[in-house]
Amino acid sequence: MAESELPPGSECVEGVLDLLGLLAYATLSAFFRLTDDAAAAESLSDKVALAGMAVDEHGHFLRVLRRLAELHADPETAMQPFVQAVDEFNARTTPSDWLEGLVKVYVGEGMAASFCRAVADLLDPRTQEIVNQVLAGAGQADFVVARVGQAVEADPRVAGRLVLWARRLVGEAITQAQRVVTEREPLARLLAGGDAGQLGKITRILATLADEHSHRLAALGLAGHSAAR
Amino acid sequence: MAESELPPGSECVEGVLDLLGLLAYATLSAFFRLTDDAAAAESLSDKVALAGMAVDEHGHFLRVLRRLAELHADPETAMQPFVQAVDEFNARTTPSDWLEGLVKVYVGEGMAASFCRAVADLLDPRTQEIVNQVLAGAGQADFVVARVGQAVEADPRVAGRLVLWARRLVGEAITQAQRVVTEREPLARLLAGGDAGQLGKITRILATLADEHSHRLAALGLAGHSAAR
Repeated sequence: MAESELPPGSECVEGVLDLLGLLAYATLSAFFRLTDDAAAAESLSDKVALAGMAVDEHGHFLRVLRRLAELHADPETAMQPFVQAVDEFNARTTPSDWLEGLVKVYVGEGMAASFCRAVADLLDPRTQEIVNQVLAGAGQADFVVARVGQAVEADPRVAGRLVLWARRLVGEAITQAQRVVTEREPLARLLAGGDAGQLGKITRILATLADEHSHRLAALGLAGHSAAR
Repeated sequence: MAESELPPGSECVEGVLDLLGLLAYATLSAFFRLTDDAAAAESLSDKVALAGMAVDEHGHFLRVLRRLAELHADPETAMQPFVQAVDEFNARTTPSDWLEGLVKVYVGEGMAASFCRAVADLLDPRTQEIVNQVLAGAGQADFVVARVGQAVEADPRVAGRLVLWARRLVGEAITQAQRVVTEREPLARLLAGGDAGQLGKITRILATLADEHSHRLAALGLAGHSAAR
């Protein structure tokens, strides 16, 4: 299958494997976070809905694994370099309640989507296709927007707390992303278009994560709220 | 669809809905337990394998939900009466490590299978078929047997602890099952073949759970070990 292989000797092969490895471990972790949220949901209908979203997320994980298999890459070897950064992000952003858990899933997915859109034109067409499929699921967003809206309506003070929480999530994500591109030269080279020294370009990509964050807060109905407790 | 409906006015309809409701919430809970075990696994390959088993378990849950939908039953209404018993079983049997979590999944699935086999001939053919499909997945067992075997080989003292743990799981499960059949008359009537007063028959069904437990311990390679720490 010609389209399933990168050009032999392509400088970017290792970078693409890095990106897929990161995406694989990130989607596997998102699956675990969603099942945590599902288990913590008070109503049976929320529990069932979130369990279904978790299983969809696992489907994304399997799609990324399949692309790694097409490229003859061992999935564990590809994921391993990113385990620490993703786990540390999760350890530093433990939600204190169900609502913070939901916002974490939403903000996390949003940042992953922004990041992948920013780098999509650097990928081979087949990998681009997989990445787009993985990011296509918008069902989570509708659910989170509805539940956050209800919570803010019931107690408007919740909004300020969630704005603070979302800001912390973005900060921690950028910290871990900076660390990953510092440690993983193949990924840094892919992101910089071949020159790992171009830290300016990489930092600009990370900056888009923060830029688009305000749009996500607006979609959550939190844009007009100040970040005060 | 004639086969998807129970005979109208059948005395057992409510009992079948109870059984499906119990099975639905039990499989949903097993999904959460498997994802907990997956998240706690140290190696990436165990993590990936257990996450896949969790998603299979969610497939079982969806199959039960589909049968409830065929019977025009609301899934939440069907599950609600069993939430407390299943949650209490889980709260009273929190694994202290990953290995106990694995044994819990294995013993829990085994008991559910024994229970359903014991009542299968009381069900309509279509519900029987669903129940058999749900219990068919043997992939979990192979995985658990392999991991427990490795752990016992590395430290034979582990075996005694796991035998004790498995015994506690069976005891707690029978306690909760007794409570469920005491509280849910439709289910009790189904199990007793129409007469809820036949507690002897019901208790004999529960006794099969304990009987088959020794076979499960043997399959885990724990049969020859005493239950001493």
